[in-house]
Amino acid sequence: MTPLQKHRTKYQPILPKSLETNTIFKGHGSTTSFADEKEIEAKFPRTFGRSLLYPEKGEKLLSKALRVGVVFSGGQAAGGHNVIAGLFDALKTLHHESQLIGFLGGPSGMIEGKTLELSEDLLRNYRNQGGFDLIGSGRTKIETKEQLKQSIETFNQLLLDGVVIIGGDDSNTNAAILAEFALSKGCKTKVIGVPKTIDGDLKNDFVDISFGFHTACTTYAELIGNIARDAFSAKKYTHFIKLMGRSASHVALECALLTQPNLTLIGEEIAEKKMTLQEIIISLADVIEKRGNQGNNYGVILVPEGIIEFVPEMRVLIDELNTLLAEEKDEKALSTQAKATFDFLPKEIAQQLLLDRDPHGNVQVSHIQTEVLLSTLVKKDLKKRPSFTGKFSPLHHFFGYEGRAGLPTNFDATYCYTLGYIAALLIRGGHTGYMCAVSQLVKPSSDWEICAIPMTCLMNVEVRQGKEKPVIRKSLVDLEGATYKFFEKNRRKWMEEDHYLFPGPIQFEGDLSLTDTSPKSLQY
Amino acid sequence: MTPLQKHRTKYQPILPKSLETNTIFKGHGSTTSFADEKEIEAKFPRTFGRSLLYPEKGEKLLSKALRVGVVFSGGQAAGGHNVIAGLFDALKTLHHESQLIGFLGGPSGMIEGKTLELSEDLLRNYRNQGGFDLIGSGRTKIETKEQLKQSIETFNQLLLDGVVIIGGDDSNTNAAILAEFALSKGCKTKVIGVPKTIDGDLKNDFVDISFGFHTACTTYAELIGNIARDAFSAKKYTHFIKLMGRSASHVALECALLTQPNLTLIGEEIAEKKMTLQEIIISLADVIEKRGNQGNNYGVILVPEGIIEFVPEMRVLIDELNTLLAEEKDEKALSTQAKATFDFLPKEIAQQLLLDRDPHGNVQVSHIQTEVLLSTLVKKDLKKRPSFTGKFSPLHHFFGYEGRAGLPTNFDATYCYTLGYIAALLIRGGHTGYMCAVSQLVKPSSDWEICAIPMTCLMNVEVRQGKEKPVIRKSLVDLEGATYKFFEKNRRKWMEEDHYLFPGPIQFEGDLSLTDTSPKSLQY
Repeated sequence: MTPLQKHRTKYQPILPKSLETNTIFKGHGSTTSFADEKEIEAKFPRTFGRSLLYPEKGEKLLSKALRVGVVFSGGQAAGGHNVIAGLFDALKTLHHESQLIGFLGGPSGMIEGKTLELSEDLLRNYRNQGGFDLIGSGRTKIETKEQLKQSIETFNQLLLDGVVIIGGDDSNTNAAILAEFALSKGCKTKVIGVPKTIDGDLKNDFVDISFGFHTACTTYAELIGNIARDAFSAKKYTHFIKLMGRSASHVALECALLTQPNLTLIGEEIAEKKMTLQEIIISLADVIEKRGNQGNNYGVILVPEGIIEFVPEMRVLIDELNTLLAEEKDEKALSTQAKATFDFLPKEIAQQLLLDRDPHGNVQVSHIQTEVLLSTLVKKDLKKRPSFTGKFSPLHHFFGYEGRAGLPTNFDATYCYTLGYIAALLIRGGHTGYMCAVSQLVKPSSDWEICAIPMTCLMNVEVRQGKEKPVIRKSLVDLEGATYKFFEKNRRKWMEEDHYLFPGPIQFEGDLSLTDTSPKSLQY
Repeated sequence: MTPLQKHRTKYQPILPKSLETNTIFKGHGSTTSFADEKEIEAKFPRTFGRSLLYPEKGEKLLSKALRVGVVFSGGQAAGGHNVIAGLFDALKTLHHESQLIGFLGGPSGMIEGKTLELSEDLLRNYRNQGGFDLIGSGRTKIETKEQLKQSIETFNQLLLDGVVIIGGDDSNTNAAILAEFALSKGCKTKVIGVPKTIDGDLKNDFVDISFGFHTACTTYAELIGNIARDAFSAKKYTHFIKLMGRSASHVALECALLTQPNLTLIGEEIAEKKMTLQEIIISLADVIEKRGNQGNNYGVILVPEGIIEFVPEMRVLIDELNTLLAEEKDEKALSTQAKATFDFLPKEIAQQLLLDRDPHGNVQVSHIQTEVLLSTLVKKDLKKRPSFTGKFSPLHHFFGYEGRAGLPTNFDATYCYTLGYIAALLIRGGHTGYMCAVSQLVKPSSDWEICAIPMTCLMNVEVRQGKEKPVIRKSLVDLEGATYKFFEKNRRKWMEEDHYLFPGPIQFEGDLSLTDTSPKSLQY
């Protein structure tokens, strides 16, 4: 362990005031689903419509020890180990003989019954640390009847009172299905979900943000700020920085607020305005021309990873290609509109669309080097402008993996510990099909507000791989929200002048204004 | 300014004990050049052979105010603003009417006389900050007679007692030429060099390391560590991480010591062993096969940016291509050996070699995506191995710009401040053609050892663009040195097992073991 890792093992998160070992959760009213009420109710007859749960002071004693399982599902997010730590500490405080069992390698560990019993000795060096490596993670989805049955069998064999599933929107959807399935089979294991994803697209009225988002964005912002200062010093490169975060643009927006780059593309805005690729390129080239003609031949541009999928014409092209490729036809069979889009793309990228396919034969959208695509087209556009007197030298970056598994910020460390603690109390209370929810996250952690939400109330019906499915609704950037409005109001200034902010690296010691920050997006 | 930036303006570097305002520098013995003594002496008749200078307690009073110029030359390195701060504070303490004048936009500012007089008000917000943006930098080289004459004219017009040139090996070579030229023209301006470069290739018996190296490597190590933890959690990607640092592999070696990845290529070793590209690929594929066959389908591999130039056959290919392209011939005219190398390359990279040329028509070696080149060839090699039962999914990263302009570590902040302070004292003492030198940098800053070295003693004659030139010798990784030996002894263990270290982000407050680190390479 490095000195900083060792130092971090000693950090003590401060729990919200409302969380104590005698806290119980009580229901208030009933809920419905996000949309498609009838279909969701039909799919979740046993868990639909339950009330939101809020903490109240309860009895002092717990009668018996609990046996609880825990699993990571999907990609890393900083703080995961602290969900386990919070869960472990709560269980042991509730009853010293309680046991926590980790499922190894993600949800497949639940199916195959691969487990590791967690002890304080094992946990000690994972407190406040990054990564998911204590028990590992995986992308297996518990979806089929067979998988659901096997999971329940494992739970029964292990005599689990509850299982905590730490995952994103899809994993929590599957957790809801599992909760419903367990009830239908008379399995007594309660299923609790914990909202994890650096993408920030799993949030709602009760969950301000998922865990990992803050550490990821703060790490990216350090790097973007460093690059902005470099650009501002060297005055010769335009940096195209692609940011992880799948389909939603929350990460890009948060990073924009933290660093004030010259331009940030927001996928939701592009979709809303139905912008074509050419329109995006022209708007980028306009900014670069304006800056270049003033002698500012440099800049910083943020590009969300999933931007391509927000451009309607690209969506059409990709869908057509997927169909054609399946029929072993090539781009010559594209519709006129799709062919025009295809021809507009740089040659290398167009070739990549044809050649680089996933195991199902589909175009690999996530492999498209969007940052290179954009800068190549912008360069072409600028060449056609006699009015452009500046220079354009693009450089490309992609930040993703470096922000998922680092040491969690104090915010994420405390938030995760709190989520784990809530999960233990919910299982103790016999609740199932609930997601742990914390709000008021901009306040000091002692003032955070706690509740538990029935996962069904976050659901609607969407078409996935050609089939209608009940899923937790992904949260996209709200173009009417105060955060986006602030960005919209200020971006022209950031574009024309330079208002770069240089946040620097995450700090763990010193003044609270340096160490105990929370996501900027929540502060508007 | 962000809260952390504001906080950093208040950091107070602690100077080495031997540096006080009454410190004078005294000579001991004489020096020669690194090599080619006769040629260097002939080129530098006035500045050759001078003695090393060491600090001694001197007189209390300084008779008159000094006028000093300062310039950044070349790429950013963290701490540059603190060289200016140390210089400014020393000059003002020596005499309150002393003046410091910044040349704007790099050495071209000296030729064109573009200046900014620096004041405490201007400097305040740049203390302990990243970037070079207070006065900017540039890559113009003061080489021709005309440029030298113009620079001297500017110095004379500004009545400068001295000028401080903050740059890498080339910039310091030119500083030496300028010092000699000024003397020959009776110009009284003293020229002092300050060793700057994140590459770490400007060091010698008296200069432990150039400034900026520590911040850059510590930043890259944060990211490499984060990625390693991600790889170790997800267990499915092999990360090829290319690191900035031109021809020498100091940055890669330092990062290897800080993070203990599975494999680190060292250019100097490849050159020493005359390894072919195929041999490198086989050695990489061997490691990936061994790990994969044990079920470890992940890994972290560090690749120095300049590695390609160390591979003898690639050097031959590039040289031949440069000649052929100048004669408007193509790859068909390559020699049999070079053609074989060309054919071994992945198609896209081979095409890039032919098409992507610099303004002189030469192949752009720095544009080659070495990390992609290596992983593509490794993939091809693994496909031919029936013995390989694992999986190989490479991901690529390049870290460079994000480490050059960030907030300097306490080490770089203090080191730079010290270098600026020394420069002022040297100018006060009437010394010219010297480089500021600090050693024992692993000790607390109060115990650092100071001297000044005649730049001529670092020089030898090298062929540059077809001409013999006196230049400061670049320092490459010493394959017989203790640092490399430690790496060599441990790398098999790091390769076969996982011994990743996760250093985390740079810390500025708290325990000294977290905040006041120094380059690991110096600790052996």
